[in-house]
Amino acid sequence: MVGAGHTRFGVLPEGPRELLRAACDAAFASVDRGLERSRVDEAYLGSLGFSGWQLGNASAILAEEARVVGAPVTHVENACASAGFALRSGARAIESGAADLVLVAGLEKMTDVGSARRRYWLGVSGDTEWERLAGLTFAGVYALIAARHMAEHGTPAEALAEVAVKNHDHARSNPNAQFHKAITRADVLAAPRVAAPLGLLDCCPVSDGAAAVLLAGEEIARTLTDTPVRIAGTGAGSDYLALQERSSLTSLAATRRAASEASRRAGWGPDRVSFAEVHDCFTIAELVALEDLGLAPPGQAAELTLSGATRLGGRLPVNPDGGLKAKGHPIGATGASQAYEIFQQLRGSAGRRQVAGAERALAHNVGGSGASATVTLFDVGGP
Amino acid sequence: MVGAGHTRFGVLPEGPRELLRAACDAAFASVDRGLERSRVDEAYLGSLGFSGWQLGNASAILAEEARVVGAPVTHVENACASAGFALRSGARAIESGAADLVLVAGLEKMTDVGSARRRYWLGVSGDTEWERLAGLTFAGVYALIAARHMAEHGTPAEALAEVAVKNHDHARSNPNAQFHKAITRADVLAAPRVAAPLGLLDCCPVSDGAAAVLLAGEEIARTLTDTPVRIAGTGAGSDYLALQERSSLTSLAATRRAASEASRRAGWGPDRVSFAEVHDCFTIAELVALEDLGLAPPGQAAELTLSGATRLGGRLPVNPDGGLKAKGHPIGATGASQAYEIFQQLRGSAGRRQVAGAERALAHNVGGSGASATVTLFDVGGP
Repeated sequence: MVGAGHTRFGVLPEGPRELLRAACDAAFASVDRGLERSRVDEAYLGSLGFSGWQLGNASAILAEEARVVGAPVTHVENACASAGFALRSGARAIESGAADLVLVAGLEKMTDVGSARRRYWLGVSGDTEWERLAGLTFAGVYALIAARHMAEHGTPAEALAEVAVKNHDHARSNPNAQFHKAITRADVLAAPRVAAPLGLLDCCPVSDGAAAVLLAGEEIARTLTDTPVRIAGTGAGSDYLALQERSSLTSLAATRRAASEASRRAGWGPDRVSFAEVHDCFTIAELVALEDLGLAPPGQAAELTLSGATRLGGRLPVNPDGGLKAKGHPIGATGASQAYEIFQQLRGSAGRRQVAGAERALAHNVGGSGASATVTLFDVGGP
Repeated sequence: MVGAGHTRFGVLPEGPRELLRAACDAAFASVDRGLERSRVDEAYLGSLGFSGWQLGNASAILAEEARVVGAPVTHVENACASAGFALRSGARAIESGAADLVLVAGLEKMTDVGSARRRYWLGVSGDTEWERLAGLTFAGVYALIAARHMAEHGTPAEALAEVAVKNHDHARSNPNAQFHKAITRADVLAAPRVAAPLGLLDCCPVSDGAAAVLLAGEEIARTLTDTPVRIAGTGAGSDYLALQERSSLTSLAATRRAASEASRRAGWGPDRVSFAEVHDCFTIAELVALEDLGLAPPGQAAELTLSGATRLGGRLPVNPDGGLKAKGHPIGATGASQAYEIFQQLRGSAGRRQVAGAERALAHNVGGSGASATVTLFDVGGP
């Protein structure tokens, strides 16, 4: 990665074109020694689509707004992991030798879709036949996962609450975050229930926003900046849509497969990271992710979280940017936003939320309730 | 390519799951020496999405129906070129060395979407701000292209009609085609006008259907079959959505860029092909494609077509399977269907529509009215 750009996340007045343009402009402007747009060989967009704006052909809109018209642009839609898969495709384009410079953008414009329509628009990313049509929402799916995790491992509600408290606290140092309000465990536990045991403050918000990163082959990257960030390995996996078909309720097989593949390609694994960006769409999801990524033994993510280890300043900071929970979760933007954060952190330019001495990181992006996932490992390259 | 499968195209009773399953089952069954599904490293799906069935997360549905759950699956949405871009991504996965065996499927289930909703669903793949909201439909866009082509080059209405007549004739030898009815130039010219100068028989139909191909690295391919078909080179390009922004009305820059890239990668170009699969969503589109691909000089595709050269048995058969016009055009399936046809033809197994001595071919897939395009060159490999 040689550049990265990010809009604010939140309830924004801008439309999808303006958000894409802003994130891409920022990414190009961030390249230390500058980059002509005509050098971009290929671009990828992660997004559910621009349905709220009655726009389609999202790839063409990225071409126009990034001002790379002419270059091939591929629109990847993998539910909430759209940009994670777009990033993987972008890395592949370079690995294959076919491209030298690749733009990967992620976008969602969600807040102008009416709430009934949005419930459907998002809901179809889960299972329809067995879950959605029976009334099970995403919060409901994750509530089942949380209840089972509590039953199997004795996970206390306080650990879920602590995930929200920590991520809200981290987001206060992220100017792009949707929320900048500190909350307490008592706030989380007292919030209205959405789907017990999950309350309002266990859930990520509905957000608008975009992010973009620029990838280059290693040799070219060194001509554009002295401090590129390397994609050391990518991995991905899939699973059944419906919970009932899966081997476990408290673990996502797609995450485990993705982590295993990424580790094999990178030659090192999640145990080596200085910090992690994980897919905390609900508080329970962060705990499950820590366990699936091998950052905590099965059933022990709660203890790790309650110990303070995953806070900024702790042994293994998780979601220093505030995560989906507090930074916001514009669906298709999230995977690109994670890469943006890692770009800042591994270059030591994350400001007040800097993870001291960060050298390796991972990004973990989940589609639907675990029907797909990507894990990407990053380092600063070199010997 | 080591295998390929195809459903019928048309107004079908099956839903998206059944269509995907049938195409994938057929693709696996077609591998000469068999292929365990567990060997698939990665899969790609080209589709607008399953909105008519109120299903999302299309990648997960492919994983389930192809029975490759676990493997990473990426859903690519590039309007009518969705599967062309999916095929390109699949080829990249192998070129990068990351994957040995890749499934690429394409699907659309269109006929159960109400016509008003379908007009919107498809219409958003064109420009919305300047075209759709002013009432310009896809037929209208291509009518403008046709009118301009006629004015610039004196292209006669009979040449457009001949494209339809030829493709309907070819489709009669394709058991999967939507139409098996011979038509005459007089029929085409007398059909009700949809958007003058285009009439009903100048337009491709609304179709359901799916197709799938299996890709393998060259060495592995030779262990699976003695007659693999090689992807010699892929190319793609983008352009502005709105016609008014483009450099020409009678030529698609995205096609020209895609052809140039594919030729560079393959080391040979469209002038070497034994036949071509081109994106004839409207009759005029086939003429424009022939010129953009360099198969006819600018303004001379009409003459080439009227000469009979593009008929089966002619010097350069175009769309031997009937093309989008008569085989049908289930949006996201088309790029995969073209690859299926080339797989059959280059193995000499195309039956009554076999192009004698076919050794090289191209597939040309367009997104929207030319906002994106892919060109893929195929041969039988070897020295």
